[in-house]
Amino acid sequence: MHFVAALDRVPGIRCVLALFEGVATGAADGYARLTGRPAATLLHCGPGLANGLANLHNAQRACVPLVNIIGDQATYHRGFDAPLTSDIEGWARPVSAWTRTARSTESVGLDAAAAVQSARANRGIATLILPSDISWSQGGVSATPLPVFPPSPVAPANVAKIAHVLRTGEPAILMIAGAGLEANALADAHRIASATGAKLFAPSFNRLIQRGRGRHPIALLPYRIDQAVAALAGTRHLILVGAQEPAGFFAYPDKPSLLKPNGSIVHVLARPEEDVVGALAALAEELVAPPVPVLPAKRPEPTHGPVTSITVAQTVAALIPENGVIVDEGISFGFAFYPGTNDAAPHDWLQVTGGAIGGGLPLATGAAVAAPGRRIINLEGDGSALYTIQALWTQARERLNVTTVILSNRKYAILELELASVGANPGRTALDLFDLGNPELDWIRLAEGMGVEGARAETLEGLADLLAVSNQRQGPFLIELVIP
Amino acid sequence: MHFVAALDRVPGIRCVLALFEGVATGAADGYARLTGRPAATLLHCGPGLANGLANLHNAQRACVPLVNIIGDQATYHRGFDAPLTSDIEGWARPVSAWTRTARSTESVGLDAAAAVQSARANRGIATLILPSDISWSQGGVSATPLPVFPPSPVAPANVAKIAHVLRTGEPAILMIAGAGLEANALADAHRIASATGAKLFAPSFNRLIQRGRGRHPIALLPYRIDQAVAALAGTRHLILVGAQEPAGFFAYPDKPSLLKPNGSIVHVLARPEEDVVGALAALAEELVAPPVPVLPAKRPEPTHGPVTSITVAQTVAALIPENGVIVDEGISFGFAFYPGTNDAAPHDWLQVTGGAIGGGLPLATGAAVAAPGRRIINLEGDGSALYTIQALWTQARERLNVTTVILSNRKYAILELELASVGANPGRTALDLFDLGNPELDWIRLAEGMGVEGARAETLEGLADLLAVSNQRQGPFLIELVIP
Repeated sequence: MHFVAALDRVPGIRCVLALFEGVATGAADGYARLTGRPAATLLHCGPGLANGLANLHNAQRACVPLVNIIGDQATYHRGFDAPLTSDIEGWARPVSAWTRTARSTESVGLDAAAAVQSARANRGIATLILPSDISWSQGGVSATPLPVFPPSPVAPANVAKIAHVLRTGEPAILMIAGAGLEANALADAHRIASATGAKLFAPSFNRLIQRGRGRHPIALLPYRIDQAVAALAGTRHLILVGAQEPAGFFAYPDKPSLLKPNGSIVHVLARPEEDVVGALAALAEELVAPPVPVLPAKRPEPTHGPVTSITVAQTVAALIPENGVIVDEGISFGFAFYPGTNDAAPHDWLQVTGGAIGGGLPLATGAAVAAPGRRIINLEGDGSALYTIQALWTQARERLNVTTVILSNRKYAILELELASVGANPGRTALDLFDLGNPELDWIRLAEGMGVEGARAETLEGLADLLAVSNQRQGPFLIELVIP
Repeated sequence: MHFVAALDRVPGIRCVLALFEGVATGAADGYARLTGRPAATLLHCGPGLANGLANLHNAQRACVPLVNIIGDQATYHRGFDAPLTSDIEGWARPVSAWTRTARSTESVGLDAAAAVQSARANRGIATLILPSDISWSQGGVSATPLPVFPPSPVAPANVAKIAHVLRTGEPAILMIAGAGLEANALADAHRIASATGAKLFAPSFNRLIQRGRGRHPIALLPYRIDQAVAALAGTRHLILVGAQEPAGFFAYPDKPSLLKPNGSIVHVLARPEEDVVGALAALAEELVAPPVPVLPAKRPEPTHGPVTSITVAQTVAALIPENGVIVDEGISFGFAFYPGTNDAAPHDWLQVTGGAIGGGLPLATGAAVAAPGRRIINLEGDGSALYTIQALWTQARERLNVTTVILSNRKYAILELELASVGANPGRTALDLFDLGNPELDWIRLAEGMGVEGARAETLEGLADLLAVSNQRQGPFLIELVIP
């Protein structure tokens, strides 16, 4: 409470209210993705943190800087086990690179500086727990910012070693993640690929990819296990560039956990915490690889016909505004969205990185706070949207330029897919548990209830019209796209 | 997935779909409160558990039996750190009396039996983590139920000791919690009080109180610190009957943490895990205390005038149906609800026990599943309702007899109170963070969007009319009560 009251005395913090902590943590992730800088969440006690954990899990997997400030009981009050007493540190640690409970008013300023330093230095989550008496006591001292050093460069010998591998001409794949998916880094990756014949892939789910017309494309490793194994088949050298070794999203009976082919060799050009961008540039130089022109692309046009993942992707591709931002939580219906928007106007592509459902709306909210001049288009499964639907209210309150496209298929279609993938044979009870159609959700009313205008599209033409309208307006808009 | 598929082969489990895990865990709590039996939640991986933690925290504080089944990665897949990999045990333990990860298909049946046993024996949360390969492999064996013994009786010598304390006639308070708030136990408590002059209090937040006309009343210890201290002032003996020693909900500058007066002595008649009901009966017998008639009460009538906590309580009191259930998450506006409904028709009163906001709608949902013949009236702050608004959809889907009364004051009023309590001086920024009015939430549209009919009341008469209508209908209904 004293922290809240102090927000009026210390200028420079923009306060954004969320109706649910999962919105706050996911929005902080979205903010960090577009700015590279940490946002802070203000949460209350263990349950407040708990409500934000799922999107902190996603943020941790995105390797973004983020600071949590968690108000807690007074230090001397903890032992009396009042109702809200809980194991905040225990809940925070699995998602935090840095966790600390402030121990004195004199040192809390330094704690705050250390939290920001850690978040920035580790591109991770720093959680500072703030007991109320530490806040309300006298003697606090503001700290000056602590230094943050850039990520370590990759050793030249390692770059030379990878170059040697690539020069063999044996089938190789560069698996590129993190900052390696920025446009300049991808240009260097294409130099490498063109000079050596190596293929390029990004993981299935990424923090941010800079892409679209005039930029070098990169394919995503498919989510589905058989397709992912096929994508890597025949590879001799798997070179990790800020990426983990690719593994299945889940395990499946009689399928491998690791996706690389037998007999392939894994090399590491750059670990996630190293200078991935510099490593790609150094490798391209080492290979004396010339620049590669971007292939010319035709501006996509809206299409007609039935509403499918592919036709929706084409329609969206035609209407992504210059420098727009796509937040993709399209789940099962969205499989064609990424490949189908390759030739759209230049844009950023954000994904839910940790598999925790309900990342989309909060990510879009935070991205819009970070980039007020850009349009955010959030392609969102209906089941997922319901996890953090409260984000719409914050979008209305802050007049954020977000267009939410609800892909309304009225079921958890991904669960039907997963059930089939493990060979289980569902009956009525199981299928009912995947069904969102009884009763049907009225997305327009839900949006209006939160203060966001919405409209329904049942055709591609309707979708295109509504996207065009929403691109021109200030503030949020919701489109319910009815999937047949 | 194999667990889900098996639900069609093994009859006897009623499956209720929730759109968000916090609804599922809170509903399991509500179910247990009315039946005394554990419900099971089915959650997925760490983030699925995380979304349910806040209401598990509440359930833990309510001492209800509850079983979580958490699907996880295959045992052999964990090491590959796929996106959803997380520290499930670490997140589960702070709220669980029992946590186990199944280790083999042969023993998983016994694990399930042990989980149910632990939940019932400890009146606590048992969390069973179920790796996918344990589910899909062959060799599973169904286990028979393991024995559950009733809570230990209190030692007669302890009962005699407490009786001796009470016979001194020195000022005494019985602080009664848990099963001690059932009607029969309260009748015994009143025998004790009448025979000895001891006063009776329940904690501020309780699992379930059986109350109303024809039942013996009990006062709640006030939430606000000064009132709570005043309520206990002058006490010489504080006798705990299934209750913790009372402490402030929060600490406040220059206020005590423990609420008992200086020089008072704390005695324990029964610990929470002991036979609280039996202890009260034994103490009444030991004191040879005669039965106490319940004071006659007039049937309350709806009232008129401005909409205040007191007048709303009177109106609700008049319209609680016989054997109804009240779920009270009225927060700041609700301070008069409990005392003001003392003379209503007999009913059960359920509260949010752990201070984790958003317990109300899920509790009401689970209570309605448990007791299909009873009307559930959920008195719910607007800020709190937004945490778990998805519960309305489950209420519609299952046609549950829940009337949700949204106390729409369009702010987090409790935070304004708390800010004043710590002596902090808020400015515009702080006050904006407590404001739900920009934009206003349209509760009728939100309800309709989830498939629940709703209507707005701006007067006590309107509230009374809508409560009367909703009492007569099958299925859920939402009333937005506009608080001026």
